[in-house]
Amino acid sequence: MRSLPRALGAASLLAVSVPLAAADSSPEARIVAAADAARADDALAWDFVEGITTEVGPRQAGTEAEARGRAWAVKWLKAHGFARVAVEPYLMSTWVRGDERAEIVTPFAQPMRITALGNSASTGDAGLTGEVVRFESYAALEAAPAGSLAGKIAFIDHAMQRTQDGSHYGVFGNVRRAGPSLAASKGAAAVVIRSIGTESHRTPHTGGTSFATGIAPIPAGALSNPDADNLDRMFERAGGAPIVMKLVLTPRDLGQTTSGNVVAEVTGRDPALPPLLLACHLDSWDLGTGAIDDGAGCGIIAAAASRVAKAGQPLRTIRVLFAGAEETGLWGSKAYAAAHKGEAIYAGLESDFGADRVWRIDSNFSKTDPALYRELALAVARFGVAPSNDVATGGADLNLARESNAAIIDLQQDGTRYFDLHHTPDDTLDKIDPAALRQNVAVWTQVVGILANRAEPIARGE
Amino acid sequence: MRSLPRALGAASLLAVSVPLAAADSSPEARIVAAADAARADDALAWDFVEGITTEVGPRQAGTEAEARGRAWAVKWLKAHGFARVAVEPYLMSTWVRGDERAEIVTPFAQPMRITALGNSASTGDAGLTGEVVRFESYAALEAAPAGSLAGKIAFIDHAMQRTQDGSHYGVFGNVRRAGPSLAASKGAAAVVIRSIGTESHRTPHTGGTSFATGIAPIPAGALSNPDADNLDRMFERAGGAPIVMKLVLTPRDLGQTTSGNVVAEVTGRDPALPPLLLACHLDSWDLGTGAIDDGAGCGIIAAAASRVAKAGQPLRTIRVLFAGAEETGLWGSKAYAAAHKGEAIYAGLESDFGADRVWRIDSNFSKTDPALYRELALAVARFGVAPSNDVATGGADLNLARESNAAIIDLQQDGTRYFDLHHTPDDTLDKIDPAALRQNVAVWTQVVGILANRAEPIARGE
Repeated sequence: MRSLPRALGAASLLAVSVPLAAADSSPEARIVAAADAARADDALAWDFVEGITTEVGPRQAGTEAEARGRAWAVKWLKAHGFARVAVEPYLMSTWVRGDERAEIVTPFAQPMRITALGNSASTGDAGLTGEVVRFESYAALEAAPAGSLAGKIAFIDHAMQRTQDGSHYGVFGNVRRAGPSLAASKGAAAVVIRSIGTESHRTPHTGGTSFATGIAPIPAGALSNPDADNLDRMFERAGGAPIVMKLVLTPRDLGQTTSGNVVAEVTGRDPALPPLLLACHLDSWDLGTGAIDDGAGCGIIAAAASRVAKAGQPLRTIRVLFAGAEETGLWGSKAYAAAHKGEAIYAGLESDFGADRVWRIDSNFSKTDPALYRELALAVARFGVAPSNDVATGGADLNLARESNAAIIDLQQDGTRYFDLHHTPDDTLDKIDPAALRQNVAVWTQVVGILANRAEPIARGE
Repeated sequence: MRSLPRALGAASLLAVSVPLAAADSSPEARIVAAADAARADDALAWDFVEGITTEVGPRQAGTEAEARGRAWAVKWLKAHGFARVAVEPYLMSTWVRGDERAEIVTPFAQPMRITALGNSASTGDAGLTGEVVRFESYAALEAAPAGSLAGKIAFIDHAMQRTQDGSHYGVFGNVRRAGPSLAASKGAAAVVIRSIGTESHRTPHTGGTSFATGIAPIPAGALSNPDADNLDRMFERAGGAPIVMKLVLTPRDLGQTTSGNVVAEVTGRDPALPPLLLACHLDSWDLGTGAIDDGAGCGIIAAAASRVAKAGQPLRTIRVLFAGAEETGLWGSKAYAAAHKGEAIYAGLESDFGADRVWRIDSNFSKTDPALYRELALAVARFGVAPSNDVATGGADLNLARESNAAIIDLQQDGTRYFDLHHTPDDTLDKIDPAALRQNVAVWTQVVGILANRAEPIARGE
């Protein structure tokens, strides 16, 4: 149990800047002081993530719970002094979970912990029983002959490891994203995967999957890692006897429902200049309460924007985008890019990788505008952030920035623990380290503060 | 994922003792060598716990799964050379879990993770809705006026901490064991407790509760620790508005069913001498697979007995008791004590506190037979085990030893992590450290080896 004081209100945040301004009133110095103050005592990001996880909880895309999340966020943003707070609605296809149970029927009867993947088909209430065929990897499944899985349940294993930069998710995540469609294309009746996760708890990791055009969806679920281990041992101990599993997964498609993006801004002194776009996503998977994914991200960007505002009205407008429906197909990001097509963006940044410390700053302009990149990297070095040679590609909700060829900065968070929690019931407030959350706000305040007060364009080349 | 070679068979264990016997053939030296060998390479305890968790899984008392566990254990004990392997049946009252769901209805609607406590009443399929009244401790609930909880759902919080010796379970465990009955006595419609656990995962801890004579059972469940934290925050944030919860818990009483104890022995050279009694329990809660509670314990005692046997037939018989139905009321321990009433026991020892290292040796004869206690303590010091001033009281399945005033030795295991896993779905094989498991077998082999080859009675005083 962690408990922190409630949000500092707008008034108290304003008060913070007074002695600093007295000491040195240059915009640069005020931003440095604002970032240092965030590191020392920021409570705004915590208030956001504590509030939304406690008062709303899970916010699955397209559901009534996501709508309650939007209403809560609108109220919170207004209470903390943001301008032009609004909801921008769009329609989306909505899938919701039903019952979910798995058991080994023979030879080693016992229940297993499973959760359905987003877009899974239903087994029907009576369930589906079939022999399990194990594949050690996505590549092994690719090698299976066409039609060889008819009537079978494909089990796709994998060897994802813990990585600081989260890079294994890109590779092994393919088991979840594309494995079910691949298994279906070979005739499988259903598919179970080892959870795309790095911990060993009986809390399976959900997440979206998609079926290729012309492939009829099949039931698809993730076993927890200890259950996948147990299934592996069953194969070792069964002496070749068939391992038969029964699955009950009863998700439903709700058809088109309304979702929405929540937008707000800190209005700049020159609103004609291209704004900064700070993004996160407000929806979460239904199993947890959306603390690290991505309540924390919304808290971080809002707290940083607020800190920068309190340090003196910035030159450029700072737009905050709490995107909707990221988890089930980037509906919010796509809708925002479509609605704002043609609008110039100065730079886009997203926080959507938990709440552990920022350890690296990447950009897509280190070669074209090295002086700016160096300035930013030097400015955040005191928070333990280093430059890199990686090219920033931006978070999922930055489609508009990518489509408009804007500058993008990735403030890379430490992902070592992220896939212990990602898309599980354990995505809850207690997993957030308040000191690491404050470090995030400090780094964001520093970077956003520099950019929002900068007149020059960012050189991006062709 | 951990994987170890399968059990060394009886033949290979016999082979191990040959070079040792050649070096020094005294019984004492052979036992020292057997314990050292267990520390280095024991695979028998691991084979037991891997086998029963993989091939049987959960083994809830009184159910068909527990019966499969008995059959599996009988086969395993015979395969590893134990004598007089048998099942001693008894009747018991059996309770089984049904559906279990909890949600906050207002003001902060969201689902919570709950599990029913053993002996909980059912809410019926339609569930039960009521205002939650929070008590910070069992003592606070005791202070509530009679009748004050009519129609309410009592929430009993507590502040259990991580302890190496598990002592907080004795104190705070009372919230689970007696809290529901106390709440019912004050008119509560239902009760939810904070899980009796030390971790922060969405895996609530089940466990037995009992209702006092004359108190009608009410629905009773445990929230996971993160959910209990969330509920605490709701009370802080609700501004005094009532917090209303809906509970669906549909457990059933199956009436009388047959359970049983599995017994086996290593026959001593003088079967007329009182035997050693080594106990563990074979049943587990249904949520996990009974790895640390108590598959590991059965593996440890069986592996130690086997090691001692292979070091040369012991003077005294070693009885192994895999008790049934410990979790739901010590049915097996009571049945064994009744069936064997009047039989003398030389000493009783139980392994039922996980699979982490033994760090302390306690006995109930340190004052009456200090030479023996000192001998034992010195013999296990090389494994990192220290003596203490505590008086051993024995595990739950040692009723016969207690009732016959036998010597009792507690080989205390490190419980620091135990209540992270206890009675949760996370009680699975991956939580066992193979090196720590081997240390257990080594310590047990040393102690059992000394006692089983000792002719003198143990001085117990009055």
